[in-house]
Amino acid sequence: MIKAGIVGATGYTGSELLRILVQHPHVDLAVVTSRSENGMAVAEMFPNLRSYTDICFSEPEASALTDCDVVFFATPHGVAQSMMAEFAGKGVKIIDLSADFRLQDREVWELWYQRTHACPELIESAVYGLPEVNRERITSADLIACPGCYPTAIQLGLLPVLEQGLVDTSRLIADAKSGVSGAGRAANIGALLPECADSFKAYGVSGHRHSPEITQGLSLMAQKSVSITFVPHLVPMIRGIEATLYAELLDPSTPLEDIQTLYEARFRDEPFVDVMPLGSLPDTRSVKGSNYCRIALHRQPESNTLIVVSVIDNLVKGASGQAVQNMNLMFGLDEAAGLLQVPLMP
Amino acid sequence: MIKAGIVGATGYTGSELLRILVQHPHVDLAVVTSRSENGMAVAEMFPNLRSYTDICFSEPEASALTDCDVVFFATPHGVAQSMMAEFAGKGVKIIDLSADFRLQDREVWELWYQRTHACPELIESAVYGLPEVNRERITSADLIACPGCYPTAIQLGLLPVLEQGLVDTSRLIADAKSGVSGAGRAANIGALLPECADSFKAYGVSGHRHSPEITQGLSLMAQKSVSITFVPHLVPMIRGIEATLYAELLDPSTPLEDIQTLYEARFRDEPFVDVMPLGSLPDTRSVKGSNYCRIALHRQPESNTLIVVSVIDNLVKGASGQAVQNMNLMFGLDEAAGLLQVPLMP
Amino acid sequence: MIKAGIVGATGYTGSELLRILVQHPHVDLAVVTSRSENGMAVAEMFPNLRSYTDICFSEPEASALTDCDVVFFATPHGVAQSMMAEFAGKGVKIIDLSADFRLQDREVWELWYQRTHACPELIESAVYGLPEVNRERITSADLIACPGCYPTAIQLGLLPVLEQGLVDTSRLIADAKSGVSGAGRAANIGALLPECADSFKAYGVSGHRHSPEITQGLSLMAQKSVSITFVPHLVPMIRGIEATLYAELLDPSTPLEDIQTLYEARFRDEPFVDVMPLGSLPDTRSVKGSNYCRIALHRQPESNTLIVVSVIDNLVKGASGQAVQNMNLMFGLDEAAGLLQVPLMP
Amino acid sequence: MIKAGIVGATGYTGSELLRILVQHPHVDLAVVTSRSENGMAVAEMFPNLRSYTDICFSEPEASALTDCDVVFFATPHGVAQSMMAEFAGKGVKIIDLSADFRLQDREVWELWYQRTHACPELIESAVYGLPEVNRERITSADLIACPGCYPTAIQLGLLPVLEQGLVDTSRLIADAKSGVSGAGRAANIGALLPECADSFKAYGVSGHRHSPEITQGLSLMAQKSVSITFVPHLVPMIRGIEATLYAELLDPSTPLEDIQTLYEARFRDEPFVDVMPLGSLPDTRSVKGSNYCRIALHRQPESNTLIVVSVIDNLVKGASGQAVQNMNLMFGLDEAAGLLQVPLMP
Repeated sequence: MIKAGIVGATGYTGSELLRILVQHPHVDLAVVTSRSENGMAVAEMFPNLRSYTDICFSEPEASALTDCDVVFFATPHGVAQSMMAEFAGKGVKIIDLSADFRLQDREVWELWYQRTHACPELIESAVYGLPEVNRERITSADLIACPGCYPTAIQLGLLPVLEQGLVDTSRLIADAKSGVSGAGRAANIGALLPECADSFKAYGVSGHRHSPEITQGLSLMAQKSVSITFVPHLVPMIRGIEATLYAELLDPSTPLEDIQTLYEARFRDEPFVDVMPLGSLPDTRSVKGSNYCRIALHRQPESNTLIVVSVIDNLVKGASGQAVQNMNLMFGLDEAAGLLQVPLMP
Repeated sequence: MIKAGIVGATGYTGSELLRILVQHPHVDLAVVTSRSENGMAVAEMFPNLRSYTDICFSEPEASALTDCDVVFFATPHGVAQSMMAEFAGKGVKIIDLSADFRLQDREVWELWYQRTHACPELIESAVYGLPEVNRERITSADLIACPGCYPTAIQLGLLPVLEQGLVDTSRLIADAKSGVSGAGRAANIGALLPECADSFKAYGVSGHRHSPEITQGLSLMAQKSVSITFVPHLVPMIRGIEATLYAELLDPSTPLEDIQTLYEARFRDEPFVDVMPLGSLPDTRSVKGSNYCRIALHRQPESNTLIVVSVIDNLVKGASGQAVQNMNLMFGLDEAAGLLQVPLMP
Repeated sequence: MIKAGIVGATGYTGSELLRILVQHPHVDLAVVTSRSENGMAVAEMFPNLRSYTDICFSEPEASALTDCDVVFFATPHGVAQSMMAEFAGKGVKIIDLSADFRLQDREVWELWYQRTHACPELIESAVYGLPEVNRERITSADLIACPGCYPTAIQLGLLPVLEQGLVDTSRLIADAKSGVSGAGRAANIGALLPECADSFKAYGVSGHRHSPEITQGLSLMAQKSVSITFVPHLVPMIRGIEATLYAELLDPSTPLEDIQTLYEARFRDEPFVDVMPLGSLPDTRSVKGSNYCRIALHRQPESNTLIVVSVIDNLVKGASGQAVQNMNLMFGLDEAAGLLQVPLMP
Repeated sequence: MIKAGIVGATGYTGSELLRILVQHPHVDLAVVTSRSENGMAVAEMFPNLRSYTDICFSEPEASALTDCDVVFFATPHGVAQSMMAEFAGKGVKIIDLSADFRLQDREVWELWYQRTHACPELIESAVYGLPEVNRERITSADLIACPGCYPTAIQLGLLPVLEQGLVDTSRLIADAKSGVSGAGRAANIGALLPECADSFKAYGVSGHRHSPEITQGLSLMAQKSVSITFVPHLVPMIRGIEATLYAELLDPSTPLEDIQTLYEARFRDEPFVDVMPLGSLPDTRSVKGSNYCRIALHRQPESNTLIVVSVIDNLVKGASGQAVQNMNLMFGLDEAAGLLQVPLMP
């Protein structure tokens, strides 16, 4: 059994890690930290876990954490990087769900997060945890930077055409929509039900922190600099991300069927990417609670714009499920272990 | 492996049976019928099942169904009773999720459903599938009448005090609330999102079909005739039932702690009834997607009214999960097999 | 024109007052205070008001407020009572939407709110602003204590049978449900959309601050001490309260039609109470954004329990609309002035 | 008083017309037709109208309708065009909310609606009822083709830059999102709350009926052929449309402030278009129940893509409110008469 710890388990990605790990066949949940809730039973805060675990929140002490085989950071940005020193040489695998090690360019990180990076020496060795791109490197990594939720949906949606150089990389557009859990389990007025239910809006339109991560990932796929306009929106729902992606085909005569074939081939062996039949309209509920990314391709009459629709559960494939998928790879387990719950629908 | 069939799998209880059974370790899903969708892949209608099953809907033919070890009826009332003759002597266990065999008094059934019962000869041998009450009889039953969703939440909430004769059985009140999936997957204007979102209402206030089932069950527990006022309400949510139950204590000096102790003792060995600590406020999301019933007890100052709050997922413990729990009992399996998914929260 | 001020306009009852008053034909909105947002245009925080008003939030200074003809307090409890001294002898009518002056018994107030009352000398002269009961006294009042949202729905629903002594006042039950705006526009995790959407729960089951207000009002109607069990619930919607009320008829032979006639007669001249035809099922959306209370009566077969369903918009008839109705009465205006917007449906 | 009739008032645009017209100061609602509900009081179906009107649904008879000064068609496509002959020479102004007369090219209409146009002779004289573009022609029109909901939000959002020729008209993108009321008040499974609540999806991705209307309108503004990719999405909310519009600036050196100035100037005298300050993030609730279109402009660093966010209430500015705005213009009334309700927020 793998001994696992979670730092910062009172947020949504933390509680989702709990949901997955308490039923994972190869994991023994050893430490769950929360400074504010020290001593409280985890199942008291999250009653869905009653009867599944008796573990209590504890202070984030290094000694308990360094006894683990793997530690997940489900913390706001800045926390993981500030605690890395305590794990040095201890042989603990680290899976960071925050943005701390996602950007390879330290200056870009410091620009967007408006602070000095506390652990720049680990940036280079951190592996970006998108298994569909980096599976081999993940297997042997010591530190995983888990992708953000929007970046996951967008990168998977564009991966095959960028790898093959089929679209104009200077004018990509990602119009993405997220449920409110993406804002985190923090008391802010904008996420109150009366503020965001029965309403819809764009946010971060002039620039969003996930943009550099998206650009970095797409550029690596395309092996050239990519320019993308990314606009996130807030949907009055709990979970789910949908990204509608627009890319101009360099060769307008390419039949959509060929691109469909390309996508199916590229993702054939991927356990969690589902290329749906041409003409499909994936809804976010079809992945609710699951680690799947579902993708569908479209093209309108007399248009050379490829439209890709990509949906994930922001808390699973967009965060905690992907983190566990990474863990499975790092420990040589079945990549899908603990991740096969059927999406909840309706 | 148990060979299972589902009649009428295009509704919500049917699709929920599919969700549970495709991952059940001891079940081989052999037949899934739908007259209207004959030939369509089940996963085409319910994309959450993509990669979990390749089965297609088929015509409800007796030959295929009688080859099964167990057949679930997830059909509107009237269908199961009209098909029972085809199963006579075939040794197939039947689990009916509809109301066809729930009422032991045929006349009451015919009054509320306004039709002649098509199979009255099986009413007496049908076992009411509430494991917390009828576990032994379920084990050896051939025909199970699965309880309704409201009746499950209400009966479990009142069971210990009725068995012990602690409350006034002449003035029970059940104020119950259900998500919209309780109305079924049928095109009716009242269940459209613009008609019931961001709104709340009582319905069936002057009388509801579940009333005689509730009265029958409670009377059996109390071993005397029980009178209950039951008012259902429609909540703008997908799943979940909450019942707030009011019962007057015959002995006002009884401490609430004693009743708490009684509840905990009565349900100690029940795998799916969770008596929460005194003062708890169970929300329906704490059982979302799961087979649990969570119960909490309350009493207000200077009042001799016991208040019981009981929550279930109407599609799981209120329908398909309970049906599978019955199946597990009938076939000597672990009662919780296939039913241990952690509730999805948030 | 009546010169009006609002203290504490950044909450939901405050913003709802703004919505009503900017279109009121006889009101000039002169002062809108908010300590935290001093200087910000009201329409910047509440863009629905763009083009309707240019007013800015200002500090709650006594001088500006005492220049008004009427001042509304849309503040948390404790604020209005602490500012009353500044208005002494200034001839300003005060309409308090908080709980500060609702309870005639100071000790009960101090027990439930756990603080010493800051202005006990005004408790007796404060008029409880339920026009259907206190219209005459409101007309000449200087200080109005606006009823709470739950108390409004419940009192209007039971008024006729209590006045006439037709029901058992020792065992009334009010099972009430509210939209999340009832929790106020304050950052608390429990009111986040991911915490309360697609879920339902009871709260305050062991006792709620609105209970003494309800008991006080019902006892005055019945002219005897009344005992009621009140349980509030949280509905995943923005606005609306529904109360399902259970009362045992003292004379079981009373036809429901007679009670219907009684209700229609009692409320015939009330501009904002709508007694719907027998058998109606009022939903909260039928009063969304409006000052109406809609009421329907029911009785189940072989039962002597009268069931009353009462719905209001918690922010309008349950708060700001009722406050303006009071203002209209105090200033001799048409009681419905500014309050006749058609409910928004769907 | 203007004598008005509504054909097909049981749908959402019909009931919204009722909501507006029962309070319109210059309208006498004379006829409200519904074949299926003939004889029923309108307020029985729509209880929000109780006390506002006593009118009953009647059969759609020509004689009653031709007595009106104006008749609104809130009907599915095909109905208005088939009834036009009955109004010939009767001097009745017709305002059609359906798609029957929106497209000037009959063949395009017949292609998308798959039927022969029943009244092609009136297509040319029908005036497209977008007041911000066609105010003068509307004033003297006899037949108005009210714009669709998506086309209204998109055309208003792009109008100034297209008129001025500032953007690349060959690669416009409109990623638009609508509440479920846009699907109409018809029983279809896809619009059930359990099917579309807590979920999000794109639909009509490969082509949608509103596309030719959008292209026609934009091309007229630009005075050249325009190519736009339009993708609609379904939001789990009742009302509201948000369109996020992407247009490449022909001159990348144009400051966003200049475009802001252009928008403000173009819409300065428009009573229902609100150009918000730079950086604003309009949400659909800020126009709920109102006739406003709110617009905000954005541009991301190092990008020459202009991003326009445009929000309307699909049932008001996107349908019935705009219809009444047209009526006001046709009859020489204040253009905003009956349309000044403050949006409902929260």
